[in-house]
Amino acid sequence: MADHQYTLAELAELLEVTCVGDAEIVISGLATLASAGSGQLSFLANPKYQKALATTQAEAVIVAADMVDIGPANCLVSANPYLTYAKASQLFDQSSSTVAGIHPSAVISSSAAIDPSASIGPHVSIADNVVVGAATVIAAGCSIGKNTVLGEACLLHANVSLYHGVSLGDRVIIHSGAVIGSDGFGFAPSPDREKGGWVKIAQLGGVVVGDDVEIGAGCTIDRGALDNTRIGDRVILDNQVQIAHNVELGDNTAIAGCAAIAGSTQVGKNCTIAGGAGIVGHLTIADNVHITAFTLVTKSIAEAGAYSSGTPMQDSRSWRRSAVRFSQLDAMSKRLSDIEKKLD
Amino acid sequence: MADHQYTLAELAELLEVTCVGDAEIVISGLATLASAGSGQLSFLANPKYQKALATTQAEAVIVAADMVDIGPANCLVSANPYLTYAKASQLFDQSSSTVAGIHPSAVISSSAAIDPSASIGPHVSIADNVVVGAATVIAAGCSIGKNTVLGEACLLHANVSLYHGVSLGDRVIIHSGAVIGSDGFGFAPSPDREKGGWVKIAQLGGVVVGDDVEIGAGCTIDRGALDNTRIGDRVILDNQVQIAHNVELGDNTAIAGCAAIAGSTQVGKNCTIAGGAGIVGHLTIADNVHITAFTLVTKSIAEAGAYSSGTPMQDSRSWRRSAVRFSQLDAMSKRLSDIEKKLD
Amino acid sequence: MADHQYTLAELAELLEVTCVGDAEIVISGLATLASAGSGQLSFLANPKYQKALATTQAEAVIVAADMVDIGPANCLVSANPYLTYAKASQLFDQSSSTVAGIHPSAVISSSAAIDPSASIGPHVSIADNVVVGAATVIAAGCSIGKNTVLGEACLLHANVSLYHGVSLGDRVIIHSGAVIGSDGFGFAPSPDREKGGWVKIAQLGGVVVGDDVEIGAGCTIDRGALDNTRIGDRVILDNQVQIAHNVELGDNTAIAGCAAIAGSTQVGKNCTIAGGAGIVGHLTIADNVHITAFTLVTKSIAEAGAYSSGTPMQDSRSWRRSAVRFSQLDAMSKRLSDIEKKLD
Repeated sequence: MADHQYTLAELAELLEVTCVGDAEIVISGLATLASAGSGQLSFLANPKYQKALATTQAEAVIVAADMVDIGPANCLVSANPYLTYAKASQLFDQSSSTVAGIHPSAVISSSAAIDPSASIGPHVSIADNVVVGAATVIAAGCSIGKNTVLGEACLLHANVSLYHGVSLGDRVIIHSGAVIGSDGFGFAPSPDREKGGWVKIAQLGGVVVGDDVEIGAGCTIDRGALDNTRIGDRVILDNQVQIAHNVELGDNTAIAGCAAIAGSTQVGKNCTIAGGAGIVGHLTIADNVHITAFTLVTKSIAEAGAYSSGTPMQDSRSWRRSAVRFSQLDAMSKRLSDIEKKLD
Repeated sequence: MADHQYTLAELAELLEVTCVGDAEIVISGLATLASAGSGQLSFLANPKYQKALATTQAEAVIVAADMVDIGPANCLVSANPYLTYAKASQLFDQSSSTVAGIHPSAVISSSAAIDPSASIGPHVSIADNVVVGAATVIAAGCSIGKNTVLGEACLLHANVSLYHGVSLGDRVIIHSGAVIGSDGFGFAPSPDREKGGWVKIAQLGGVVVGDDVEIGAGCTIDRGALDNTRIGDRVILDNQVQIAHNVELGDNTAIAGCAAIAGSTQVGKNCTIAGGAGIVGHLTIADNVHITAFTLVTKSIAEAGAYSSGTPMQDSRSWRRSAVRFSQLDAMSKRLSDIEKKLD
Repeated sequence: MADHQYTLAELAELLEVTCVGDAEIVISGLATLASAGSGQLSFLANPKYQKALATTQAEAVIVAADMVDIGPANCLVSANPYLTYAKASQLFDQSSSTVAGIHPSAVISSSAAIDPSASIGPHVSIADNVVVGAATVIAAGCSIGKNTVLGEACLLHANVSLYHGVSLGDRVIIHSGAVIGSDGFGFAPSPDREKGGWVKIAQLGGVVVGDDVEIGAGCTIDRGALDNTRIGDRVILDNQVQIAHNVELGDNTAIAGCAAIAGSTQVGKNCTIAGGAGIVGHLTIADNVHITAFTLVTKSIAEAGAYSSGTPMQDSRSWRRSAVRFSQLDAMSKRLSDIEKKLD
């Protein structure tokens, strides 16, 4: 992390927080309280870890005002240490090393409009009429289908596949292996009585992704059947999230790993959907709804709040007993009613 | 959608349905009842949306005979409007724009047999002894392992990986990021007492995929340990489906997103497996079985029908109370029995 | 399988087992008891399949000493037939056909250090300061980010994406579509009251993968936020497994398809996590813990053993009755208590 160095005073200015202690010390990296050492900045966002603050070897720490006296002498005092840590992390990020221009191995249609400040990596394919905005980076092995439009300052990591007719806003980050614009799962039962099977419904809609969206590794977002699939502004998707055709995700909604939303479901704004959860198709989910991990949502949700399904973990032996009784629940309920009648 | 235009009379002929109204109007696209406008064709497949038929601005609609009088004057009258819509969608599909031939950046083994009518995109790799049938399209960045055979009129979207020894029938569509022929998850516990771990079982079988199969984005289908993994004719897989080694899927079976079938399980014909469902290994599932979303199938199913597991969604507070009681179910059952004994 | 041929005597020596019968017969392949024929070796690892041993057409079989008299005259007698089969499978594996050297279409940074015995396939991209060890194979379309280090005898199948700052030990196998080192899902809530959304936390840690690890197709393993994500030695991951940032997996742990481990969770050694299971974040799981399929682990596990959640599969009609009662469980429990009070 030696490339990115700041004095504590510089950091305080960049992060818009107050500097306490020796403003001239040089910070060259970020680390946790437990592992930080000389030249490193750490942070305390959760009071639960207050103990670690007292013993940390960090050169300086980001803390709330009431924690200044507990830890190291050098502090960045913030009303929101977690947010300040987030901003600081970006200052120390050295992952990017792209240069503007098109790698000679990339295959670019002559009808594509690539901004000169964009960076197109090795083995990229860009089809007809694609538009790539200023400062957008497309890393190695990505494929961009015809008529697809990327806004400014987007970042596509290696091996992302965008189909035709996809639209990305500005500052969209897409991680490796993600696929945007694949065909929705639409088929009519075949009229062939003998063979059976399915008649494919061509998926004629597109995918419209808003600004400031992040899409995790291995996510799949299908194109719409007729209208578009829509991902709102500032939506964040963790890895391996599946978004079916014609889904609409409201602004700011966050979806954790391996969750899946079935076709035509509309999810509101500011929702959080935890890992492995699922929402069946054609539902409407209100704003500010929170779905817990592994929950299956089978009906529309009209009120903000938290929703769950599933059973608690037990040791397998106890669980088997519970599970057997689950199958008997209706009978148990009737036995209970019978007893109540007897006693009345 | 201006490239593909048909008069209503032409559509009626192509779709083998009856034309009502002005046969000479020009249709240039498909849209939903709610969003269709001038020059667009829509459809009513579900009587639930009958209201929208009365108010649609569509130029023409695909409807059943008993709906002709409700909507626009121009109709395509079909005994199966959904099927007619499916066929019409293919007429208006403009996604394809491939040309026969091999892109100069593709790397093709001299022992591969590529039909002259096939289209091989940029940055494709094709290994020894691969066979690619007539009119098959392999898009950018795909990799095809040695001895793999693709039938006619297949379509591999960008960045698909086929390992060696995979066989695809005719008209197989595979979406981006899918992987066919990866090693099954087979390991023997290591005899090394101290280190532990696993001895890899080389996966010597292949994958055989039938005709008219569609495989969604990010699907993974493992090769067999000794015999082949088999995907029947007209099987359709949504995105992120996982098929383990030596699974056999019967003809016409449909599997929705994020479902997974564990090793050596045989699934019958005409089954539907909903999103996020799982089937454990070494089971036999009969024909015409329907598994609901998020269900875990833990034993073989001998009879056609619908099967489920899981619990209903509740608000999280109510759910927590249910969940606690689930852990107490066996005790509750015994208390119930005790009461019944007392009362007898 | 004609390329790899051994006499039974040669196999006995290579596999360190005893040869019974005609030591000079030539074995050219492996097959199951049911499908094996002339020239093929089979095995009986599970006494359940003993019947098939009596009728197999296999040229020879791997069996335990007490099974020698049941099947074919030619046997390899092993104290652990399954392990012997695993070793034999490797002898008959013909999947590899790589040659040392760098394919001319690969794009390799001048600062990368590629061992001359390594094999770099077509359309591979290797960034600055990457190190690739002896005999390591990187197949077509892989992308390797800067400063990433691959040990010796690793095998990356086609279209694998390794980000920057990833470290692989020796003999690591990674299947197609897998992504290692993508950003963890870390965001601070935005201070912008009106717009909402999220401030990205740059993920500054890396991923460290031990020796003899196998990572399945479509797996995603995120880089750490500050410290590294760690995968122990001899860990095996099936397809589509999701490992979040800062997870630590202990040595020898095996994770089946579509399972997911959330951020900062530490899983012990010798654990098995079955398909579709999930572990929420910031937990500690002891050594020798076994999680059954589709289980959600929501609290730390301090004791070795098996753990489960979920409900048993029923036909959907019966299941709906159980499910309704689940929502009423707390009320049922109170009714039970009321009755008990009455009776006391």
